[in-house]
Amino acid sequence: MIHIGIDAMGGDHAPAKIVEGAILATQKDKELVITLFGKSEEIDASLASLSYDKQRINIVTTTEVIEGEDKPVHAIRKKKDSSLVVALTQLKEKKLDAVVSAGNTGALIAGAIFVTGRIRGISRPAITGAYPTIKGPMVTLDIGANADVSPQHLLEFAKMGSLFSKIAYHKENPTVGLVNIGTEATKGNELTKAAYALLKEEKSIRFAGNVEGRDIPKGIVDVLVCDGFTGNTVLKLTEGVADTLFSMLKQAIESNAKAKLGALMMKDSLKKMKESLNYEEVGGAVLLGVDGVVVKAHGSSKEKAFSNAILRAAQYHREGLVDKIKAIVKEESTEK
Amino acid sequence: MIHIGIDAMGGDHAPAKIVEGAILATQKDKELVITLFGKSEEIDASLASLSYDKQRINIVTTTEVIEGEDKPVHAIRKKKDSSLVVALTQLKEKKLDAVVSAGNTGALIAGAIFVTGRIRGISRPAITGAYPTIKGPMVTLDIGANADVSPQHLLEFAKMGSLFSKIAYHKENPTVGLVNIGTEATKGNELTKAAYALLKEEKSIRFAGNVEGRDIPKGIVDVLVCDGFTGNTVLKLTEGVADTLFSMLKQAIESNAKAKLGALMMKDSLKKMKESLNYEEVGGAVLLGVDGVVVKAHGSSKEKAFSNAILRAAQYHREGLVDKIKAIVKEESTEK
Repeated sequence: MIHIGIDAMGGDHAPAKIVEGAILATQKDKELVITLFGKSEEIDASLASLSYDKQRINIVTTTEVIEGEDKPVHAIRKKKDSSLVVALTQLKEKKLDAVVSAGNTGALIAGAIFVTGRIRGISRPAITGAYPTIKGPMVTLDIGANADVSPQHLLEFAKMGSLFSKIAYHKENPTVGLVNIGTEATKGNELTKAAYALLKEEKSIRFAGNVEGRDIPKGIVDVLVCDGFTGNTVLKLTEGVADTLFSMLKQAIESNAKAKLGALMMKDSLKKMKESLNYEEVGGAVLLGVDGVVVKAHGSSKEKAFSNAILRAAQYHREGLVDKIKAIVKEESTEK
Repeated sequence: MIHIGIDAMGGDHAPAKIVEGAILATQKDKELVITLFGKSEEIDASLASLSYDKQRINIVTTTEVIEGEDKPVHAIRKKKDSSLVVALTQLKEKKLDAVVSAGNTGALIAGAIFVTGRIRGISRPAITGAYPTIKGPMVTLDIGANADVSPQHLLEFAKMGSLFSKIAYHKENPTVGLVNIGTEATKGNELTKAAYALLKEEKSIRFAGNVEGRDIPKGIVDVLVCDGFTGNTVLKLTEGVADTLFSMLKQAIESNAKAKLGALMMKDSLKKMKESLNYEEVGGAVLLGVDGVVVKAHGSSKEKAFSNAILRAAQYHREGLVDKIKAIVKEESTEK
């Protein structure tokens, strides 16, 4: 069995949709045993109207809640009896195989690092997401855990990202690209110029060179590496541009009766297109480099998106994600 | 009269479309006198079939050409008789009021700094573009001249950008935003956190706080400030996402006869939307902080886009852009 801890109090639709998502996941994956961490009366209320396998849904009562606006490190230190901190403690104690939360991202990162702990040899765990390219999801890291990084950190990200691409998307020999402002080795800022040199020399990855902004949505590599400031901006800007284009299209259509009729006829095509950009379908981001599987579901997750995040977390555990990252680090220290 | 120097050898469609664009500009603005710098036999060939006012089109023969793949600083130093270097030299000597080029961007920046020269008190000239938001063009700098900057540089960009927004888009009291990964003052990397503090204290600008990626296309500020790495990535990614969405839409349409008919009916609306995203219409980017008006037209500019860039350059000169930047810097040194 795979034991998954759920922060039942995190996210815009907690706990009701989180609880529903957990039950949905147990129905889809028969190996899952889920522990819901949170205020028991609220969890019980959410569970009351649902039918589920009582053998596979446990509740651990916690009294505190980390809110979206709480300062991450402070919240982790002060709210010891929060759903998030108690779940991450059980992950550290190996009572759980994975933890999934739709709550405060900063607190999840801080908690994963300070409560669960880093993998020895990884200096900076990275939030790893799936960028929705025209060719499918592209593993992208870091997307927000580390606003300032060194070239060496980017090399760590490249290695963890390659491994993750194999595990999560079954790429045999994934290509790695570096976000940069030109394709030549000499282009970029101090960080990317130095990182290019490191990535190029690294034999354990398949470095494909720099990737400029305009090529990101084309999915020309399997793994995209960047600092957390750049990654976060890239993901949010993509969302913003897509939203803006859809609203411009809507506006243009509304101002014109012929176009309106045309749009109605195109409705299915447009819907299909929007779905392929839907972050919710992808099933959350994963924090690579901590000693346990930690998955962040989108804050606005409802039951379907949240259950997808749980199923992903189970897959990562099954495939031995954490042990494989440890093996990479070990190989390295042996080589040196 | 306003004297504009044109790098007739720069750009994908040089010199023919550059020359046509120059003539188009003289027809639209009767105060323009244009000097075309380049290989005279090629310029003459392009001029041969055109009718134009010979009093207002001059040619200065140069023998060398800086190519797109040339290394900027090296090219500026070695190719002393290139169209770009000779034009920028005449700008320094005040024989010209402005220079416009569609050629190698890096060489234009290097030449403007090393040949024409910086304004005293400006440490880093910035390439300033117009990001096409849903509310119209948003002044954005730096978009590629400075991959690594300090908080103080971002403050200079904010001041120059505010002034430019007044001159180019007639905003009376433009708002300034900082690209960042969260809206709170404490969010960001070391650079943006320090820059936030500086911008907040600066009384000569109207600082509106941080702008996250998803809000960039919404045009929630008049002036957007960032380092050149971020700005370049933001512009190119926006272009990439828009292109990708249009090609997805095309694909979706082609796979479905009903949608195809619908798309035909929507054609005008879609065309209008694409036009509003057209960088060419905006008329090029300007290098703020050098001692002369220097405008970079898009490399793929044809006659219309190039003539727009020239008309913009004339407007900037007419409004005293360079003198006004000098005045900002002077005020400051007097205050201190």
